[in-house]
Amino acid sequence: MLDIVTKLDIATKSARRFIDAGAHQRLWNLLKSLHSADIAALLNRLFLKERKVVINVLYENDKEKTAEVLSELEPEDAVELLKDMQPQDIALILQEFSSDDAVQIVEFLPEDIKTQVLDLMRKKESEDVRELLHYEEKTAGRIMSTEYYALEKNTRVADAITALQLAGDIESAFYLYVVDKDNHLEGVVSLRQLLLHPPNTQLKDIMTTDVIRVFTDTDQEEVARQVARYNLVAIPVVDHENKLVGVVTVDDIIDVINEEATEDMYRMAGVDESDRIQYSPIKSIKKRLPFLYLSLITASLAPFVVNFFKDTIKEAVILAVFMPLVAALGGIAGNQTIALMVREITLGQVSWLTARKALFKEVAVGIGNGIAIGSVLGLISYFLYGKPILGLILGLAVIINLFIAGLLGTLIPLILKFLRLDPALGSVNLLTMCTDTFGMLSLLGLGTLFLHYLQ
Amino acid sequence: MLDIVTKLDIATKSARRFIDAGAHQRLWNLLKSLHSADIAALLNRLFLKERKVVINVLYENDKEKTAEVLSELEPEDAVELLKDMQPQDIALILQEFSSDDAVQIVEFLPEDIKTQVLDLMRKKESEDVRELLHYEEKTAGRIMSTEYYALEKNTRVADAITALQLAGDIESAFYLYVVDKDNHLEGVVSLRQLLLHPPNTQLKDIMTTDVIRVFTDTDQEEVARQVARYNLVAIPVVDHENKLVGVVTVDDIIDVINEEATEDMYRMAGVDESDRIQYSPIKSIKKRLPFLYLSLITASLAPFVVNFFKDTIKEAVILAVFMPLVAALGGIAGNQTIALMVREITLGQVSWLTARKALFKEVAVGIGNGIAIGSVLGLISYFLYGKPILGLILGLAVIINLFIAGLLGTLIPLILKFLRLDPALGSVNLLTMCTDTFGMLSLLGLGTLFLHYLQ
Repeated sequence: MLDIVTKLDIATKSARRFIDAGAHQRLWNLLKSLHSADIAALLNRLFLKERKVVINVLYENDKEKTAEVLSELEPEDAVELLKDMQPQDIALILQEFSSDDAVQIVEFLPEDIKTQVLDLMRKKESEDVRELLHYEEKTAGRIMSTEYYALEKNTRVADAITALQLAGDIESAFYLYVVDKDNHLEGVVSLRQLLLHPPNTQLKDIMTTDVIRVFTDTDQEEVARQVARYNLVAIPVVDHENKLVGVVTVDDIIDVINEEATEDMYRMAGVDESDRIQYSPIKSIKKRLPFLYLSLITASLAPFVVNFFKDTIKEAVILAVFMPLVAALGGIAGNQTIALMVREITLGQVSWLTARKALFKEVAVGIGNGIAIGSVLGLISYFLYGKPILGLILGLAVIINLFIAGLLGTLIPLILKFLRLDPALGSVNLLTMCTDTFGMLSLLGLGTLFLHYLQ
Repeated sequence: MLDIVTKLDIATKSARRFIDAGAHQRLWNLLKSLHSADIAALLNRLFLKERKVVINVLYENDKEKTAEVLSELEPEDAVELLKDMQPQDIALILQEFSSDDAVQIVEFLPEDIKTQVLDLMRKKESEDVRELLHYEEKTAGRIMSTEYYALEKNTRVADAITALQLAGDIESAFYLYVVDKDNHLEGVVSLRQLLLHPPNTQLKDIMTTDVIRVFTDTDQEEVARQVARYNLVAIPVVDHENKLVGVVTVDDIIDVINEEATEDMYRMAGVDESDRIQYSPIKSIKKRLPFLYLSLITASLAPFVVNFFKDTIKEAVILAVFMPLVAALGGIAGNQTIALMVREITLGQVSWLTARKALFKEVAVGIGNGIAIGSVLGLISYFLYGKPILGLILGLAVIINLFIAGLLGTLIPLILKFLRLDPALGSVNLLTMCTDTFGMLSLLGLGTLFLHYLQ
């Protein structure tokens, strides 16, 4: 069996060849042989123009598979492909989606098309989607599926099995939820338990009552944390009256986890979550420029400090030589602290109780690393330039800057969290602003103080 | 129901109070009321000394729960707590683990203790662990569980159900694997399908033969990609003769995904994966110093360039003022590209076919953003200092540096991948070295060229 990546490389190469040659029949033969999830992965490697050809060929030949493929794509990418189609075609495709996948597409459609599409969909599916649209983005209500197995608690095992046989194929049905007659969630029975008990047993006698559940307004990150912590494959979603309204399955949780990890990483680097390597330059420039303009502002603080010390630099140009080094070391050490803080906050492992200890600890690490790195740098520069005072200035500047890095590397994510902002968002930028500025301030400040000995 | 984080904050506060007061009975009462996974999360918020108290109290009162809690911790953290115990106690705890969890602990134990512990464990469990130890780290073989349901293909549905009833509780049993008499994997039957077919049907008549499987030596990231792509809750692991040897369940996949996301983020920031906010300063300093010393070396390239242009700076100190700004902008833009490349390589969305287009695209973005940012900076500096040539130099330096950022931000992760190294590892460091250096080179080089007009 080929590695999944290699297999896709080959398929992508062939697809490109068929697209370029306009060989739509051969393209369809290739697509027919691939799993929907693989076609989705293949689309991710193609450019927009090529994607449109693939989707059109697919849609002409197999509408259901087209729906499967589109539901595996990132919603933004699926919308990109759908929005050129007629509303009736979009409706036809979306009603094949599970409700949680469909809502992610519908919310991205332009307002007028959205209404048309919802009106054109089958009534049941359209109602489900409209219901999910009421819940806020990134909550359990928005990502849950409204298709699940739930039976009344007095149901006998034999009838439960018959009900399962009569019901259609439901996405990842691993649990049977048990409710009272008003649909309040009371328990859960695994399919395995159904097999293990005599046909006449009532569900209420074999159900587990200690069901881990989330509310419709629970944040999706919190849902993911619960599924991960308790090793679940699905988690029921209830409203504030404990009525069962949906289920979030583990495959959606994996998407949430990947999405949040990407988000943290991108936000730390100042990249929009929806930016892609495959986008056109213009689109990516538009997405990245705002952050760069912001950086232009934050990065302008350090030049002000340097400007203040112009006369010192004129007298001792050697200080300018070491400016980039002192700034870089502070930024790098601060980034280490920020990465740790952001990740542990995301994984829910930092509380206000531990934050204070973390602060003292990271400051101690900053000073410790500062002494270790600063003394080496001090010694080297002393040997290179023969001026002990230069070594002292550089060593002290590094210690001060790494102290600042530890202090602010901890405080910035914590303050952002306290302000209910994302700790990843802009924290690296703010930190670099501070370490650049304090780096210049300590290096050039000390340089001015000891200028007499430097000349 | 309380938010999981708030609930833990309260439990942590109480646990701390009981530990400080030596109130072990009250501590045990608290622990008794918590799910094992919650105790594990609580331990993550405590410092090592406190953790040891909790584990001791737990072990005195409930050995099985101790095993459950320890299996939920990161292996390194569990080993930290276990290594002070007697080998017979460690063996007692580890034989309650599932084999894939136990092996992760055993591999971290000192060699002499490892042998003793394996000899002291129950024969069956000890053999399973020894078998898994043969497989390489971070492969399917290492993370798979050897406990799974597999039956011969001629088995009738009724007998399969009886077999399930007789078997003990197996971790997340959602599928029944179907094998021939030599244990070659031939198909899979979901528990739901068992319920839907008459008792006399043979498994071979209802099984799905197109089973997605991985090999024992498949990389764990690749296993995670397959589970995520095909929305599975478990994936069978076979040897190179297609004999079924184990199963990787989705809860382990979630751990892998979180682990790899942490790894990417930490490696980009130069943090060791095993570093923790809760560690002692000495421990964290030891973990972070190597990367900082390496950074001291890479960050020393820029000072060499500045040193070369000392005379220019003496003549036009204004250039030194803008050094931090030009360097910072290059670093920030390059980081944007690196974050995108690393993430898309991890998610398996960049192939050699798309890499070339990505390179041209990111270079175009670099130049485009460079023009947008450079011209603003040029204009501002012109208005501030009244020297058009200064504006021109700054604008050009930013354009050149952002071009370099786009070029190397794409190339560095690709080259690292080509060398079979982790694209995240050290890429930011290498990039900053380059943007700092080229930033100084272009700013001071242009400054020297137009020095006459600057004075």
